[in-house]
Amino acid sequence: MSIETRHILLMDGPDSTGLIHRVTGVLAHYNLNIIRNDEYVSPDRQFFMRTEFEGNYDSSALSDNLQQTLPPGINLRINPKKKKNIIVFVTKEHHCLAELLIRYAFDELDADILAVVSNYNTLQPLVSKFGIPFHYVTHEHKTREEHEEAITRTLSIYEPEYIVLAKYMRVLTPTFVKKFPNRIVNIHHSFLPAFMGANPYRQAYERGVKIIGATAHFVNNDLDEGPIIAQNIKEVDHRHTAADMSTEGKDVEKIVLSQALKLVFNDRVFIHQNRTIIL
Amino acid sequence: MSIETRHILLMDGPDSTGLIHRVTGVLAHYNLNIIRNDEYVSPDRQFFMRTEFEGNYDSSALSDNLQQTLPPGINLRINPKKKKNIIVFVTKEHHCLAELLIRYAFDELDADILAVVSNYNTLQPLVSKFGIPFHYVTHEHKTREEHEEAITRTLSIYEPEYIVLAKYMRVLTPTFVKKFPNRIVNIHHSFLPAFMGANPYRQAYERGVKIIGATAHFVNNDLDEGPIIAQNIKEVDHRHTAADMSTEGKDVEKIVLSQALKLVFNDRVFIHQNRTIIL
Amino acid sequence: MSIETRHILLMDGPDSTGLIHRVTGVLAHYNLNIIRNDEYVSPDRQFFMRTEFEGNYDSSALSDNLQQTLPPGINLRINPKKKKNIIVFVTKEHHCLAELLIRYAFDELDADILAVVSNYNTLQPLVSKFGIPFHYVTHEHKTREEHEEAITRTLSIYEPEYIVLAKYMRVLTPTFVKKFPNRIVNIHHSFLPAFMGANPYRQAYERGVKIIGATAHFVNNDLDEGPIIAQNIKEVDHRHTAADMSTEGKDVEKIVLSQALKLVFNDRVFIHQNRTIIL
Amino acid sequence: MSIETRHILLMDGPDSTGLIHRVTGVLAHYNLNIIRNDEYVSPDRQFFMRTEFEGNYDSSALSDNLQQTLPPGINLRINPKKKKNIIVFVTKEHHCLAELLIRYAFDELDADILAVVSNYNTLQPLVSKFGIPFHYVTHEHKTREEHEEAITRTLSIYEPEYIVLAKYMRVLTPTFVKKFPNRIVNIHHSFLPAFMGANPYRQAYERGVKIIGATAHFVNNDLDEGPIIAQNIKEVDHRHTAADMSTEGKDVEKIVLSQALKLVFNDRVFIHQNRTIIL
Repeated sequence: MSIETRHILLMDGPDSTGLIHRVTGVLAHYNLNIIRNDEYVSPDRQFFMRTEFEGNYDSSALSDNLQQTLPPGINLRINPKKKKNIIVFVTKEHHCLAELLIRYAFDELDADILAVVSNYNTLQPLVSKFGIPFHYVTHEHKTREEHEEAITRTLSIYEPEYIVLAKYMRVLTPTFVKKFPNRIVNIHHSFLPAFMGANPYRQAYERGVKIIGATAHFVNNDLDEGPIIAQNIKEVDHRHTAADMSTEGKDVEKIVLSQALKLVFNDRVFIHQNRTIIL
Repeated sequence: MSIETRHILLMDGPDSTGLIHRVTGVLAHYNLNIIRNDEYVSPDRQFFMRTEFEGNYDSSALSDNLQQTLPPGINLRINPKKKKNIIVFVTKEHHCLAELLIRYAFDELDADILAVVSNYNTLQPLVSKFGIPFHYVTHEHKTREEHEEAITRTLSIYEPEYIVLAKYMRVLTPTFVKKFPNRIVNIHHSFLPAFMGANPYRQAYERGVKIIGATAHFVNNDLDEGPIIAQNIKEVDHRHTAADMSTEGKDVEKIVLSQALKLVFNDRVFIHQNRTIIL
Repeated sequence: MSIETRHILLMDGPDSTGLIHRVTGVLAHYNLNIIRNDEYVSPDRQFFMRTEFEGNYDSSALSDNLQQTLPPGINLRINPKKKKNIIVFVTKEHHCLAELLIRYAFDELDADILAVVSNYNTLQPLVSKFGIPFHYVTHEHKTREEHEEAITRTLSIYEPEYIVLAKYMRVLTPTFVKKFPNRIVNIHHSFLPAFMGANPYRQAYERGVKIIGATAHFVNNDLDEGPIIAQNIKEVDHRHTAADMSTEGKDVEKIVLSQALKLVFNDRVFIHQNRTIIL
Repeated sequence: MSIETRHILLMDGPDSTGLIHRVTGVLAHYNLNIIRNDEYVSPDRQFFMRTEFEGNYDSSALSDNLQQTLPPGINLRINPKKKKNIIVFVTKEHHCLAELLIRYAFDELDADILAVVSNYNTLQPLVSKFGIPFHYVTHEHKTREEHEEAITRTLSIYEPEYIVLAKYMRVLTPTFVKKFPNRIVNIHHSFLPAFMGANPYRQAYERGVKIIGATAHFVNNDLDEGPIIAQNIKEVDHRHTAADMSTEGKDVEKIVLSQALKLVFNDRVFIHQNRTIIL
């Protein structure tokens, strides 16, 4: 199969001499044009490379050739540069969802929102303005497992590459998380690892902090403990009540989430030992 | 006694109608000129006011008059606007101390450094450049209590108004802290309340944060838990090792400490329920 | 007429002894409860005060009483604390408008958007989602004056208190600006006063700056020269093209504009000698 | 000559296919270990690469081999990783100089300060604390050319690689600048390109900005117009006088200058079309 579009080659594994040399040699052999190349070697000698290239090539031949050229232990992926398919989970707060919807409507999200899922119907009117399916799956009278099973059934007609928790205020079970390894992105309304858990702005107020922040991170089994993708902050002072901090924090949250998603959807984020490497 | 310099009136207590009215009335009665007036009422209805004024007045008469005018329960202090006397505690790291020494040498600190105390003699050469007494009080072969008693004996010839912990890497006992209530300022090398305790930059690295910070705070009995005066941050990324974060963090630490001290030494910081109110 | 709602008293004029005393005395006389009081005296001895209060009162009596109590030359306004009526002007870019529409839809704007006016019809579909009148007034085949007259006719059915230029890419004439003194707010897509005029991100790219920014300001007759209300920034580096800077800049622009409008709509902004004083 | 230390290979020139491949091939041939490799291709297809490597090698053979392997038009430099020799120019303000002296004294500057030159003797006492030669070269009764000739004679005993203008308040002539192409670094006390020229904090105050900043840049013939290396900012408000802004600005200036010098002294800064590329 011959392809002529832009692609992204992602590699990671133990570092060894000449890795870049070998990869760029193969790409040169196929007359592929490197648009952008970024690599990083971690202090524990792991190698990470992201190469954006374009040109005509036979994808399986390229992949085989690269695999043979590289030492064993190197993970290799070649992704076409294209929008990701995503599902957005929300509860009642609108600010992050609205940010994503507006970006989606104007083709700035690098993703297609297949559907929005919520345990409340509060945000249905907003979502309907943008012609996107809204699935109201209440958690009432359900165990956590039953609720997630209901969501899973709802999602079964979609094939999302990523799930975005845009202020989804429920903890996901390990069973659910395991289905989407490193493919669930959450926005946490605090400057992790401070103020984990509920009511972080109340906690921040009571601790009297002078700066509040928000954190976009991948979700793994330990809530609030997955790899951090992006963080940002805003200065506050004693005149801010906990409610004021929450209001100001929302502006930070929605921008941080959007910026993190841009990195993720452009295949710029590697994960290594619970840290992200962004190339 | 008649005085003609600039003074600062500090008041705090339960809010009630007409407090500003009564105070400004008394000041007007004495023909005192208000240079700057800032007040704040907290959500739990506590009143805080800082009034900078100048003019000739009889200090005890003014104080009596204000006390009589104000309802009971209002704390009242009148400080002359002048430099504070301080002692600086250090261990081995120089960056915060050097910052204070340079500011002191060029009359930018709003304080006189009476002496520097350290449990190591590492920084003696630096301090001696600035003609300030350096007291090396080793903690070796001493219990924590014995060490603090040795420090206390050393300090007995001074009457410091504030103690500045400029990277002093030892925990103070409640007994010591109690002698200087809200008069010990510490710079913590992390963005509190995240990464409390030792090695915060190592912790930050391992958690993979994208922003590091530093916190200047008052010391009370719970280490790292006193009221926060100032915080600031710097962006980092995956290329920063724990050592790099530490290096970058030092620039933040020394500036945050200096800015916090400026606020404290100018009597701009009130404390209320473990939070600072900065007027 | 007796009123029981929250009001905002705004005063400015030459400073003199006892101003706060006199005003708070009058408010105490009427048993009005001061919720928040902020004042500022500029280096050139102008006095500014914003007092938020609540209680029952006869508005004309209060106003008369205050005017008699205060020395001549003090401007006095008493505004009810309520949403402002605004018109939003746009051209083709959606990000600022969308931000305002979402905030409006969720009652977070402190204003009612009466209508949106544009010289293109590009954003009509977006506006129609929110049920707000959209007036398309083309500038084609019209002089600047004719175009503004057409807009003025369109606006004649509304009584806007403020006009918000949310990326309106046309220069307003002095004649138009004069009709809305200090009541037109613009978002400028640069860190004023750098890069005034057109294509600031291209200018920023060519100058090789490491930080881009945006500025919300009042519009007066000198384009880009009105009093600044709020500014914010974002770090960039050599990898950002002019287009990337523009994309990143939009996130800054929309947040800065929203934050500036929040200040303006809450009557927190005074203007003095082309500078804003924010209380 | 066989060398075993860390070196930095710097390359720039027109981009073409396989550049990285060829260079890494040569380094692999010599068994040199790449510690860190960063490259960038500008939108106008210029290639920049910085490769930090270590190992034993014959320097002229390596250089010849690389030159033969690379297409014509590629500039190539191999620098040993070592401290730079610098001269610091000052006038009367101490904050940037003190910052550099402290970093130098504690081996954190990545440079040796050979001498300090000033047109005033104000800072001699500070410099003498650190045992560094201080040359007082007054500009009084001299033309600009005569003053610079006097400085040049003074410098003739040194061989500085870089000149750092640490608040040197005199404009250098093109003749002088030409002797140190891209080797003079200045700290400008404003957020360039705003507020060029004298008294930028006064200008900032009068313009009523909400953010002040500082800019470290290379000096070329157009004052304030050389390539920007680093910028940073601080928020201010209406309560800041021009003097306050200047005071706050100094903290920004000294940190920005230090951070820019760290980049320059580690050979991380390329210049392309008046912009810096930092690898």
